[in-house]
Amino acid sequence: MFLTYAIVGTGGIGGYYGGCLAKAGHPVHFLLHSDYEYVLKNGLKIDSVNGDFHLKNVSAYKNSQDMPKCDVVLVCLKTIQNHILPSILKPLLHEKTVVVLVQNGMGMEQELSEQLPSTSIVGATAFICTTKVGPGHIHHAEYGALTLAKHCGDCDEIVRQIASDFENASVNVSVFDDLNSVRWKKLVWNIPYNGLTVVLNAATDTLTNNPDSRKLVIDLMNEVVSAGRTCGAKISDSFIDKMITMTENMTPYSPSMKLDYDARRPMEIQTMFTNPISIAKAQGFEMRKTEMLEQQLRFLEKVAKSI
Amino acid sequence: MFLTYAIVGTGGIGGYYGGCLAKAGHPVHFLLHSDYEYVLKNGLKIDSVNGDFHLKNVSAYKNSQDMPKCDVVLVCLKTIQNHILPSILKPLLHEKTVVVLVQNGMGMEQELSEQLPSTSIVGATAFICTTKVGPGHIHHAEYGALTLAKHCGDCDEIVRQIASDFENASVNVSVFDDLNSVRWKKLVWNIPYNGLTVVLNAATDTLTNNPDSRKLVIDLMNEVVSAGRTCGAKISDSFIDKMITMTENMTPYSPSMKLDYDARRPMEIQTMFTNPISIAKAQGFEMRKTEMLEQQLRFLEKVAKSI
Repeated sequence: MFLTYAIVGTGGIGGYYGGCLAKAGHPVHFLLHSDYEYVLKNGLKIDSVNGDFHLKNVSAYKNSQDMPKCDVVLVCLKTIQNHILPSILKPLLHEKTVVVLVQNGMGMEQELSEQLPSTSIVGATAFICTTKVGPGHIHHAEYGALTLAKHCGDCDEIVRQIASDFENASVNVSVFDDLNSVRWKKLVWNIPYNGLTVVLNAATDTLTNNPDSRKLVIDLMNEVVSAGRTCGAKISDSFIDKMITMTENMTPYSPSMKLDYDARRPMEIQTMFTNPISIAKAQGFEMRKTEMLEQQLRFLEKVAKSI
Repeated sequence: MFLTYAIVGTGGIGGYYGGCLAKAGHPVHFLLHSDYEYVLKNGLKIDSVNGDFHLKNVSAYKNSQDMPKCDVVLVCLKTIQNHILPSILKPLLHEKTVVVLVQNGMGMEQELSEQLPSTSIVGATAFICTTKVGPGHIHHAEYGALTLAKHCGDCDEIVRQIASDFENASVNVSVFDDLNSVRWKKLVWNIPYNGLTVVLNAATDTLTNNPDSRKLVIDLMNEVVSAGRTCGAKISDSFIDKMITMTENMTPYSPSMKLDYDARRPMEIQTMFTNPISIAKAQGFEMRKTEMLEQQLRFLEKVAKSI
């Protein structure tokens, strides 16, 4: 049996993962917004470190109401759009549809499961550098691994099948059973690097090499690890060292929040900062430095909006 | 008896206060650096909200070794130059000379008293907006009050005389006996506003009006108050409200650290941030948010230096 896929949000992430699945022969339906006409006519072009490819005939839609119900919906929207997610998703869902949130932050699955109580929901983190460089044109620069972990629903079998489909499409996938740990571990990197690249206007390598910002990155990582552990996440003592070493070995780059800020798009402050801060606070842990970063980001976003 | 004054550092602060004393007829000797020739020839021009004046004949020096010993030395240098202070001061000191440090931060008096153990030292804070706008040309925009408090030495009588000289020169002066409280109270304003105007590239009014930065300012103020109290400072519960209201009523402006940063001069991070952080830490109080601001400032200073 072939699973049918819907990609909600065909940007750098959705275009790449959806493109890989389609190239491997899986049925994939793409929801597009501004690029709809272009992709309908010209298809999707993916320049990838793993080999370029061009999908000439793409099953493209401008509105989710026109799409078929699918077995799997990969949500690759920025979380700032999550308020419109239930209305986008409803036409796509059958009884066993699994919604996979390939998104940054905390609390998205909980929020969606309150809005769509009978839907199976899986959280996913993408370790990938990929950008939409033009209409229907994705540039995949580095990495690509996906991590999946169930939030709710009777969907273990389908999740295994999704993983197998991705492996078949040459995407490295891991399935974990503890979404809480997956989300907190991702935040250990995301909070310092997304926040500080914006506030200090610097790339990942500069922040990692300067002794003062390196110490601040590590302080923030320690705060996120402590918060996560307070909330029941399992994070090993060596995890921070691993993250720093990984960053040192990365091609210097600007994380998604920095790209959003520079392009004057709204930043994912709510899910990446506000939600974990309040989730930790509810468990009695104050993320003081993360909170300060959040306040700085909200200030800068407001100023950028007013210019 | 007339006290003789030496002004070490004839910038916005030293030029203004020294100018006021000289105008009122007190003997004042000014130590200058780059403006020496200009001031020797043209004197000091002070444009002040309290009335402009021009001191045509100024007792100007390029080197403290050429200056007479004085009864009072007003040190109006940025604290980043304090490492050269003992050598500047030595030629100016007689047995009863009182050195007044009109400087920002914490720990300057302690450091100097270790270097010059038998010297009377007084700390001072200036609540004033004054800038050197050109050679020998000071613009005094607002305020002007001085607060004096003894650090060490048998100098109470002379401190009273200094206060009386300043009153005579139309400078509002308060004398306190608790320098520790004076310094910590000044930091309650200086830490958030000096730090955040640099890191967030914003003036005092913008920071105070935006709800997120206002909350951050108040969070930082609370941290400084708690740190100060842990270190024995007496700060009333209403002090933060008073500082916020005062800032709301101020003409929006850039504090000294922001001016230094924008002009690519070194910032007073050591005395305004590092010293209070480590003094509080020695008493068991961690200034977490202030420490984060310090790390951000050190990072930005390093980047500015490298451009």
